[in-house]
Amino acid sequence: MMEAATGSGISLEELQLAARNHGMPLEALRHAITPAGLHYLLIHFDVPVVDAATWRLEVDGEVERPLSLSLDELRRRPAVERTVTMECAGNGRALLDPRPVSQPWLAEAIGTAMWRGVDLRSLLDEAGIRTDAVEILFTALDRGIDGGIPQAYQRSLRTDEPALDDAVLAYEMNDAPLPPQHGFPLRLVVPGWYGMTSVKWLTQITAAVQPFAGYQQVDAYRFRRDEADPGVPVTRILPRALLAPPGVPDFFTRERSVPLGPVALEGRAWSGLAPVERVEVSADGGETWWDATLEDDLGSRWAWRRWTAEWRPSGPGRYVLSCRATDAAGNVQPLEPVWNVGGYANNAVQRVAVTVAH
Amino acid sequence: MMEAATGSGISLEELQLAARNHGMPLEALRHAITPAGLHYLLIHFDVPVVDAATWRLEVDGEVERPLSLSLDELRRRPAVERTVTMECAGNGRALLDPRPVSQPWLAEAIGTAMWRGVDLRSLLDEAGIRTDAVEILFTALDRGIDGGIPQAYQRSLRTDEPALDDAVLAYEMNDAPLPPQHGFPLRLVVPGWYGMTSVKWLTQITAAVQPFAGYQQVDAYRFRRDEADPGVPVTRILPRALLAPPGVPDFFTRERSVPLGPVALEGRAWSGLAPVERVEVSADGGETWWDATLEDDLGSRWAWRRWTAEWRPSGPGRYVLSCRATDAAGNVQPLEPVWNVGGYANNAVQRVAVTVAH
Repeated sequence: MMEAATGSGISLEELQLAARNHGMPLEALRHAITPAGLHYLLIHFDVPVVDAATWRLEVDGEVERPLSLSLDELRRRPAVERTVTMECAGNGRALLDPRPVSQPWLAEAIGTAMWRGVDLRSLLDEAGIRTDAVEILFTALDRGIDGGIPQAYQRSLRTDEPALDDAVLAYEMNDAPLPPQHGFPLRLVVPGWYGMTSVKWLTQITAAVQPFAGYQQVDAYRFRRDEADPGVPVTRILPRALLAPPGVPDFFTRERSVPLGPVALEGRAWSGLAPVERVEVSADGGETWWDATLEDDLGSRWAWRRWTAEWRPSGPGRYVLSCRATDAAGNVQPLEPVWNVGGYANNAVQRVAVTVAH
Repeated sequence: MMEAATGSGISLEELQLAARNHGMPLEALRHAITPAGLHYLLIHFDVPVVDAATWRLEVDGEVERPLSLSLDELRRRPAVERTVTMECAGNGRALLDPRPVSQPWLAEAIGTAMWRGVDLRSLLDEAGIRTDAVEILFTALDRGIDGGIPQAYQRSLRTDEPALDDAVLAYEMNDAPLPPQHGFPLRLVVPGWYGMTSVKWLTQITAAVQPFAGYQQVDAYRFRRDEADPGVPVTRILPRALLAPPGVPDFFTRERSVPLGPVALEGRAWSGLAPVERVEVSADGGETWWDATLEDDLGSRWAWRRWTAEWRPSGPGRYVLSCRATDAAGNVQPLEPVWNVGGYANNAVQRVAVTVAH
């Protein structure tokens, strides 16, 4: 992946990606469930137009009983519902320096949805994964070229990956059929993992005796110190808390204005590694912190938790608000970004500039 | 408005806007009606959280009978449906040189939806606009600072503007309640005009004896040659045709690849000035053109028309595809942009790079 030098502006190619993909405007943190059109979206290739009447899901490879299922057949099975916070692995990339050149996310590549569909494990059990299979490969209908390689979008999970037990083959999002851009007619949702694993426009599930060596697995989505480093895979979502920016924005700078007086702060926090158990807030750019009040989750370990805090500015002026999540495994957000070649998983604390009026 | 010098990259402020607002990925031109989350979106301030149970629409000012209506009261009235192609006035801004610095749209700030709601004219007639009123002012619930001025978002139309007869006070988009980001619980939709006129999160309609002199009317949304020029208002949508990019994309460059052989091209075309009556296609960057086949509209003068064309590349290589709309009033898209201070209404023909394989 190329890098853009310190201070250099976003290129036309990056802008093309930013204009078609989109984040969740951070005021939408006030919604427990993100309305569909506000949920972040990253589309590698094009949104395919799929005819649900002829579409089928194939389950094949190292299985005892290959399956070929229509959408109606999937919908007639027992349904499961999971509320899941999803985040793009590239979230925070555009705040790295030098900037890895790809989809230029700031902090808003997130969203929480209620996904309804078929429990993945039940389908795998029905097909009967053979004991010599080491991975399950998920193949999508969207096609294109990435890293110079023509491909359908594909990602795999190890057969011993615990997330397989939580994964949903979703045909509904927030009580409506999947929108085209979120994977109609069927997508994988893997709770706790970054979004690249939740393959949209799913067409094939294949049990394999060899690890998948495709582009999206071995070239993209790895933490690499430099181009020579083979790196380690990007997997679960690192902890993050975000603040719904208080007051009102300036259209262009997005800086916030609030009247003088106590300010009710709120936001959400999540981690794919372990439940979030602490959120702290700072009003001086990270010098000092105080604890926010953490609410229960939404009845799902995999959904974000709301937090609230009261901020009493000492007087008029410009402040920088931040928040910081810690999870039960002791993972805490860093104050400064941790750089890597692909620009993945930059969960450095958010900074929101707020001016308190006279 | 500031300008960015030739060749300079997109700034962090522009990127913040591009990450929260979004265009319609151009493959969605294959949908006659744009699915809600794919329709372009420009939010000046924040998406407000509105309690529909307490929200009311006020109709006041120079009227005989002021009205105050709940959402239920509006929904109990006779409903009208209009299929409308909407476009942001800033579409094409980031392709201008020097680049006016604001939301950096390329060509995708478009969408077509079916809006259902109350006919605006019937409500104005019921309130009884007094003859000395010269404008109708529409006030929104979203607030912020623009051009240094604190404001609620507001736009007006003259009382003799023909579009008032076509306008809808919409509470549904594509057979579903308005999503928060498209103006829940009620928005104005003014067919044929650029999107700034279709005020979202509508709370007040005011008949006024003086023209509105607010920021969004007299500072923004004017065609100005330079900062000293008071300019003329941006009003109706200039003609534009767009092509659904053929073949498959490269993830990063978005350049297209197709196999050697005839290529079926398709797209949509629209104009707010007069019906589109011709679409031409070029495969040599605008040197030579041939006529596309234009389909009927979607039963609405205000919806785009689909067009198709067959392209027979002379051999392998890289081509630049373009398309060009002409409307019944003789307006035709220019080959090169027409610059203005605010970067509005750049309807220069689209350029799509396509490589034909060996």
